[in-house]
Amino acid sequence: MTRLADTVTRLNFMGDTFQPGHVWLAGAGPGGLECLTLGVVAALAEADAIVYDALVNPAILDAGNGERHFVGKRAGQPSTSQETINTLIVDLARQGKRVLRLKGGDPNIFGRGGEEALVLARAGIPFRFLPGITSGLAALARAGIPATMRDVNKAIILATGHAAGTAEDLDWAALARTGQPIVIYMGVANLALVVSALLGGGLAPETPVAILMATSTPDERLLVADLASVVARSQAEKITAPALIVVGQIVEKRAEFEALLEMVQAS
Amino acid sequence: MTRLADTVTRLNFMGDTFQPGHVWLAGAGPGGLECLTLGVVAALAEADAIVYDALVNPAILDAGNGERHFVGKRAGQPSTSQETINTLIVDLARQGKRVLRLKGGDPNIFGRGGEEALVLARAGIPFRFLPGITSGLAALARAGIPATMRDVNKAIILATGHAAGTAEDLDWAALARTGQPIVIYMGVANLALVVSALLGGGLAPETPVAILMATSTPDERLLVADLASVVARSQAEKITAPALIVVGQIVEKRAEFEALLEMVQAS
Repeated sequence: MTRLADTVTRLNFMGDTFQPGHVWLAGAGPGGLECLTLGVVAALAEADAIVYDALVNPAILDAGNGERHFVGKRAGQPSTSQETINTLIVDLARQGKRVLRLKGGDPNIFGRGGEEALVLARAGIPFRFLPGITSGLAALARAGIPATMRDVNKAIILATGHAAGTAEDLDWAALARTGQPIVIYMGVANLALVVSALLGGGLAPETPVAILMATSTPDERLLVADLASVVARSQAEKITAPALIVVGQIVEKRAEFEALLEMVQAS
Repeated sequence: MTRLADTVTRLNFMGDTFQPGHVWLAGAGPGGLECLTLGVVAALAEADAIVYDALVNPAILDAGNGERHFVGKRAGQPSTSQETINTLIVDLARQGKRVLRLKGGDPNIFGRGGEEALVLARAGIPFRFLPGITSGLAALARAGIPATMRDVNKAIILATGHAAGTAEDLDWAALARTGQPIVIYMGVANLALVVSALLGGGLAPETPVAILMATSTPDERLLVADLASVVARSQAEKITAPALIVVGQIVEKRAEFEALLEMVQAS
């Protein structure tokens, strides 16, 4: 299966032309048109069918001409099952359509892009990934927090808090022991568990934490705290999903930038 | 400096309007127009001055009207010093220009966006970050390798190999002990050091490794090997920078997708 021996080869997995019967697994970025790529805009114009999630800004779809299939969550109704989505994209491709499967953020950062790719491969349907700006890095940028900074960190970890507390959970203590900042997706519901595990891994209670809630929406808010206080603070401030959590010294850079700007501008 | 106590606040650091005397630190993605965002296209149209690196696809600049300042490496000449770049962006902003500082990839993933932000803050010049698709995640997508996949990993680490072997180096063994895949930027020159440190951290010699060389250029190539053989293989195949290195089981997914597609299409 792995073919480790014979593979100095072309890098491009499936070519750049959107062909009938192919599926492109694409990311629209975190919501605003600002983060949409020209590649997705072009794919929208070419697609015969667009299968999209609730996370996508509706204005994005106006660049498309194809039939639209909404598969996200609607208020008060259960979300479309992954099984239904899998069947839909396979069926549309078998009808000879160019299928654009459009997700929020990046399809391959906790977006099930790989899972849908596997379904397509098993059905013999060619596909490619078209990256989007992942919501964690976009949220940091919007908040003025640099993901990496030379004197602070030489790596950054993107992690999901989705499985926190289950048998499938990440080894948060091992992540903590790297000493590198961690951007946690889908972590608000399990915040107490994750914070406890990070403290158990040796992170100091005064390690800075930011929670970036509902980024790029009218409800967006930023909470800055430390590991010792963030659980109580987020409850007091009624922080809810969707939100990104960032743990590490990089969080302090926003306040440092602000303080410097104010100091110079006041002088 | 850190203001941990008083900060449930607006998330957006500096607003969305490109004002005279402001600097936007922006990412153009990994080279192709496909990964360019609408936000950068709009900023190019508005900017009075564009300060850009060699990494940027020249066609991208055609969307801009402002004066152009090239600060990347030219063949046979030393690259522009960071000090010179810092002085230039401060001077242009003080002249009241809208300054677009355009980098390849994402300015905040090993792109010195934060360092330039600090210079601007110290000079009292407002700035914001405008994210781009980081080259590591774009290269994985292009190669058909999912960055995350539910049954494989719940985190991914982006790391730089730039400082490998120096006193400022990452703790690669600690990264290895997380069990999560690692995408290594600027690691080819120090490949032997990094591989040795990862093996020392307990990664199995048969852990899959991909090197994605010169992605999105006519020279792009993919080498797939394992930790035990990748140093010799990359020398034999004359792999050179620029290249991304990916370590972990996610690498095998490309071959798995290919094998499934071929099997179904042959049947």
